[in-house]
Amino acid sequence: MKLADLPQRLLLGPGPSSVAAAVLQSLALPVIGHLDPAFLAVVDDVQKRLAELFRCSAGLSIPISATGSGGMETCLANLLEPGDRALVAVQGVFGERMHSIVERIGARPIRVEAEMGRAIPPEQLMAAIRSEQPDLVALVHAETSTGVAQPVAEAARAAREQGALVVLDCVTSLAGMDVRFDDWAIDAAYSGTQKCLACPPGLSPIAIGPRAFERLARRTRPVPSWYFDLSLLGRYYGSERVYHHTAPVSMIFALHTALERALGEGLEVRFERHRRAHAQLVEGLEGLGFHMLVEPEHRLPMLNAVIPPYADEARARRELLDRFGIEVGGGLGKLAGRIWRIGLMGENARPEVVDRLLGALGQLSR
Amino acid sequence: MKLADLPQRLLLGPGPSSVAAAVLQSLALPVIGHLDPAFLAVVDDVQKRLAELFRCSAGLSIPISATGSGGMETCLANLLEPGDRALVAVQGVFGERMHSIVERIGARPIRVEAEMGRAIPPEQLMAAIRSEQPDLVALVHAETSTGVAQPVAEAARAAREQGALVVLDCVTSLAGMDVRFDDWAIDAAYSGTQKCLACPPGLSPIAIGPRAFERLARRTRPVPSWYFDLSLLGRYYGSERVYHHTAPVSMIFALHTALERALGEGLEVRFERHRRAHAQLVEGLEGLGFHMLVEPEHRLPMLNAVIPPYADEARARRELLDRFGIEVGGGLGKLAGRIWRIGLMGENARPEVVDRLLGALGQLSR
Repeated sequence: MKLADLPQRLLLGPGPSSVAAAVLQSLALPVIGHLDPAFLAVVDDVQKRLAELFRCSAGLSIPISATGSGGMETCLANLLEPGDRALVAVQGVFGERMHSIVERIGARPIRVEAEMGRAIPPEQLMAAIRSEQPDLVALVHAETSTGVAQPVAEAARAAREQGALVVLDCVTSLAGMDVRFDDWAIDAAYSGTQKCLACPPGLSPIAIGPRAFERLARRTRPVPSWYFDLSLLGRYYGSERVYHHTAPVSMIFALHTALERALGEGLEVRFERHRRAHAQLVEGLEGLGFHMLVEPEHRLPMLNAVIPPYADEARARRELLDRFGIEVGGGLGKLAGRIWRIGLMGENARPEVVDRLLGALGQLSR
Repeated sequence: MKLADLPQRLLLGPGPSSVAAAVLQSLALPVIGHLDPAFLAVVDDVQKRLAELFRCSAGLSIPISATGSGGMETCLANLLEPGDRALVAVQGVFGERMHSIVERIGARPIRVEAEMGRAIPPEQLMAAIRSEQPDLVALVHAETSTGVAQPVAEAARAAREQGALVVLDCVTSLAGMDVRFDDWAIDAAYSGTQKCLACPPGLSPIAIGPRAFERLARRTRPVPSWYFDLSLLGRYYGSERVYHHTAPVSMIFALHTALERALGEGLEVRFERHRRAHAQLVEGLEGLGFHMLVEPEHRLPMLNAVIPPYADEARARRELLDRFGIEVGGGLGKLAGRIWRIGLMGENARPEVVDRLLGALGQLSR
């Protein structure tokens, strides 16, 4: 495959999303050393901007040198020890992934579940937290496999009242809808660069609060992962700037620019742009015979789970890709073959993008 | 920090090394989806090229979505279970890192050690392997903290005779000197993109052989890391192409081009280029009052550990960076403040680069 022959795609799947030219240009800047004072100044900016994006005023906001799932593992592996009890809210594939990581760590998962396509009622979560009194509560804010927005603020506050730590997956929500680390009483949150931040995949922004660091200090065993050990990472990303691993310099340049764009636009403006694009999409899709999987009040703006009106959904997706250059996602897990996942993330949450998709869908063979 | 104001640097430290314009251009190509057939064709090429570079004819050669230390953790965490005995050859910081990871896994490390700046005699390693009969032997081919080339072929063959698996760190050696996965009887090897491959940091190429996969199949417990679990990664990088995590698309584009350049040059030609640049550097440095830390027969061509003739080595490095735009590395661990590490990796293993460094050093304040 010659890279010069790569097709151009409009990326309307569950991620990666389309990346602005300015971000790609930053990615291609000449590499400098990961301990160079000029690079450390870039890292300083990135940390401040991530803290602003997460609305995390204390603790540490950094990019983990891995994709979103690496951030998930970082949060859980640092905050849990074998035997700890972790209540995991499972509404789809990413809740299942948290559950699996909790088990691998040797902690004991307590499962609270919703049907695929539904949120877990906050009252149910709060009741489970109060009766089970877990050490940690793991929540998925935006479940990418089902398009569900899970209400998390009430459950997180209930967890804090019980003395449990709260880990929040905001891989798909961050920079596309409100994430309030401080206000919601979150202790550790992780995201990915390739969704609403509209940066290439490869980094996982995380925020770690003071209570999480207190828990880290009380650990009786080392974190099982050296690569994801926050105490070691904190020595590079803290004031010491001690070598841990070689920071992914180019990706951090790209993230620097992507964050500048997101914060420069204004978060409220950006969130409203995502909501409007979503509303336009839903109206258009319903006119074309699509059905939404999720009830209106729990729909994510940036990730739309829809039941397509085609007998052969895979063939229709392939036609959309080959004939129109538009990628949408298929279903994952139990929803494979049943739904499409249409992402309007970051750069793509715009009316002209929705127009182009609806125009193409209207021409697709039935 | 405005990215437009970033300084230009000649990267002659222990990595990252300077990246060719063609590789940076590939990095900046428009992003496409990680399950797009066009991207999977790129991944196919990368896997074939990595197998050629590692000289690994069977098994799996893939890029891990993390830096070199993530590749280290992948190899050890998949091939060891709690209680397994791992003989670790420690000649510096990266041998220590392997030792630490072995402990975190709950396996039992057996330490064979050399003084910083020396290789471990192969006979000593072979004798230890025969008497200890470990489950796994972990070797560092090119110890980046000391500039030592460790002879590994005899020890690896002794390990195979005893039925032990062999994990080889070739972070700094791969693409700069010969690495022979098949011939040396290696079972798992890992590297980094930011050294002799002259690609930005962020990926860890690994090769996993058939005996390693047999061991994986015999595991009695899940791999502690979900992110680095080779059975799951093998479903994306194997024929199934099932989603695991979102592959770092842009970095894989860059690796595609970096591999094309390395293999296109011819590996023997490339290795000879590294040897010649090293010889030129050593001669020039000795004329300037530097001393080599390592005896001639164990020196790495691409990473030169040298004792600088300056009273304040940190100040001299800073002058080299600020006045001449050249980065060299300081010492790590016990060698901090005592040595410099001068890398001539990938694009920088060229006479004109050595000329520029020597010219700058000749002008440095004493």
